[in-house]
Amino acid sequence: MAAQNKQVLLANRPTGWVKESDFRIVETPIGKPADGQVLVKAIYLSLDPYMRGRMNDTKSYAASAEIGGVMTGETVAEVIESKNAAFKAGDVVCAHTGWQQYALSDGKNLRKVDPKLVPLSTYLGVVGMPGVTAWIGLLDIGEPKPGETVVVAAASGAVGGVVGQLAKMKGARAVGVAGGKEKCDFVVKELGFDACVDHRSESFLKDLAAATPKGVDVYFENVGGKILDAMLARANPFARFPFCGMISDYNAVDRYGVKNLISVVGMRIKIQGFIVSDRLDRWPVALKELGEGVASGKIKYRETVTNGLENAPKAFIGLLKGENFGKQVVKL
Amino acid sequence: MAAQNKQVLLANRPTGWVKESDFRIVETPIGKPADGQVLVKAIYLSLDPYMRGRMNDTKSYAASAEIGGVMTGETVAEVIESKNAAFKAGDVVCAHTGWQQYALSDGKNLRKVDPKLVPLSTYLGVVGMPGVTAWIGLLDIGEPKPGETVVVAAASGAVGGVVGQLAKMKGARAVGVAGGKEKCDFVVKELGFDACVDHRSESFLKDLAAATPKGVDVYFENVGGKILDAMLARANPFARFPFCGMISDYNAVDRYGVKNLISVVGMRIKIQGFIVSDRLDRWPVALKELGEGVASGKIKYRETVTNGLENAPKAFIGLLKGENFGKQVVKL
Repeated sequence: MAAQNKQVLLANRPTGWVKESDFRIVETPIGKPADGQVLVKAIYLSLDPYMRGRMNDTKSYAASAEIGGVMTGETVAEVIESKNAAFKAGDVVCAHTGWQQYALSDGKNLRKVDPKLVPLSTYLGVVGMPGVTAWIGLLDIGEPKPGETVVVAAASGAVGGVVGQLAKMKGARAVGVAGGKEKCDFVVKELGFDACVDHRSESFLKDLAAATPKGVDVYFENVGGKILDAMLARANPFARFPFCGMISDYNAVDRYGVKNLISVVGMRIKIQGFIVSDRLDRWPVALKELGEGVASGKIKYRETVTNGLENAPKAFIGLLKGENFGKQVVKL
Repeated sequence: MAAQNKQVLLANRPTGWVKESDFRIVETPIGKPADGQVLVKAIYLSLDPYMRGRMNDTKSYAASAEIGGVMTGETVAEVIESKNAAFKAGDVVCAHTGWQQYALSDGKNLRKVDPKLVPLSTYLGVVGMPGVTAWIGLLDIGEPKPGETVVVAAASGAVGGVVGQLAKMKGARAVGVAGGKEKCDFVVKELGFDACVDHRSESFLKDLAAATPKGVDVYFENVGGKILDAMLARANPFARFPFCGMISDYNAVDRYGVKNLISVVGMRIKIQGFIVSDRLDRWPVALKELGEGVASGKIKYRETVTNGLENAPKAFIGLLKGENFGKQVVKL
C-alpha cells in the first residue's frame, strides 16, 4: 500500500473554546508534482494563536479556513521531489502548507532556509513569523529608548520572549507578564528580563507597580483583557502600545470590557495594530538579525514539541489555554 | 464701595456627577497691576469638558485645580489697565484667567485677538482651543483622504462640528453622531455633514451602518463608551482614531468596558491620544485657517451662551450631560 498523506481538517466553526471535535483527521493520497511544482514533506508544523481567528467566519485581514479544508499553518519541510528549477530534493524550506504531512507547491510560498545555522524548529519560532512579529512590533512601532520600560505579556512565549530580549539589547528595562512561577522564573533567569509578574497572582497589580517603578513606556500587546487595563493605568506620557494579538479574547463569547482607555488621552498613548505580513520588506533584516542572535546564543528561546500530527488539535487547544511553555510546534 | 471681583472656586472634588455644591461663589477685591502686569476683565468664559478632569486629584497631563482655588478656564478679556509695554487698555486678548471676572497677568499667557475679524466668543470655540483640537486631531492624526469616511461624535459641539466641516473640505464623507433629532438635523442641514446618527436611538447601530456604507476610515474620539465600540466594529483596514477626550467617562464611577479592541489588530487601527497644548507650533496656522473660514462664512458653528458668572456651574453640569447645543460659553 502506498504511503498516505495525513491531514487535519476544520470540521466545525467553534463557538467559544475550541474542542478536538472541531477538527477531523483524514488520510488522502499523496499528490505527484506537475511541471513547475515540488512535493514537500513537513518536518515541523507551527501552532500559533492567530489560527483561532482563521476558524471563524468573520471579516478579517485573512481568509477564513474552509469547513472541510486543511487547517492553515506554517511548516518547515523538506523537498522530496522537484519539477521546479529553483528547488531540488533535500532542500529545506519554510512553507505555508498547513496541518498535513505532504503538500504540492508551485514554489512561490517556499523560502529556503539553512539547516546548519539554527535548529530547524526555530524557523517557525524565534527565527520565523513570531520572531519577526516581535522585531517589527517592538522596533518599528514600540521604538524603545535606553532607560525606558518595556512590558510584554505572554513573556515566555514565542513572541514575548523575543520582545524582552530585543528590549534589553536596546538598553531598555524588560518586564514580562506570564502565568505562574515556573514561566516567570524562566523569563528572568533564562531570557534575562529584569522582572516578570505573574498575572494569576492576587497581587498582580501591586507586583506590576513594583516591577515598573518608572511606569510603562512600551507595552507590547498580545493578550488583552485585564492586563491591558493594568498597562493603560501604568502608562507614561507618549507611551507606545503595539498590538499584535489578544489571545484572551479569541475564545471569549463575552469579552472583557477595557475600562482604562481614558489614559490614551491624558498620556497621549499611541496604540498601533499590526500584522506581520503587511511588512514583508522588513522580514529579511529581521530574520538575519534573529538568526545570528540564535546561532550565537545571544537570543534564547524555549519550545514545546508535540509528537505526531494527530496530536496537533490537542496541542493547539493547550496553546490557547497557555499550557504550552515557549513556542509550540508539532514534530511530524 | 469699590467694584468686586466675582470668582467661582472649587469647593469639593466630585465623585461621579458634578453638583453645584462642588463650587463656591465669592467676591474679592480687584487687584492693582504692578510693573509689567495688566489687569483684564473677562467678557466671555469658555466651558469645556476637559475641566471635569481638573476637578479630580489624579495623575494627569495638567495640574488639578486646588480646592478653594479659582476654577481654571480660558476667557476672552479686555485689558482694563496696563503696566506692560506689550498691551494697552482696550486690547482684546485670549487669556487663561479662569472662572472669574477680573485677573492680573504678567502678559505671558495673553494672546491678542482681532475683535473685528470674527465674533469675540468664537475665540473660545471654533477659532480657539476647540477648533484647533479639531484641526490638529483630524488633519495631523486622522489624515483623511478624498472619498474616505470620517466619523465624529458630539458632532454639534465645538470640536465635532469643526471636524466634520474640515473633513468635507478634504473631500471625505463626514458622518456625525449626536444626541437627538434637533442636533442631528443641525449637523446635516447647517454644518453640511453627509449624515448624522442619533446615539440615543434604539436603532443606533443599524443607523450607523447605513450612514457608513463603506466602513469608517477616521473616527475622531471625544466621547468613548458604546460609540467607540461601534466604531471599532465598523473600522476599515488602517483606520485612524485620534483621541482627544472621552466625555462619557468623565463622570462615570463604573466606566463602560470597551469590548471590540480586538479590531485594532485585525484592522491595524492606529489610536493616538493627543493634547492640543502639546502642539503649540501648529496653533498659528490652524487659527489662521479657522479664523478665515469663520469670517468668510465657510465654517459654521453654534453656541449656547449663558449669562452671568454665577450661572457657570449649572451650565457646566449641563455641558457634561449634553444639554448645551454647540459651544458652551458664559457671558460675564
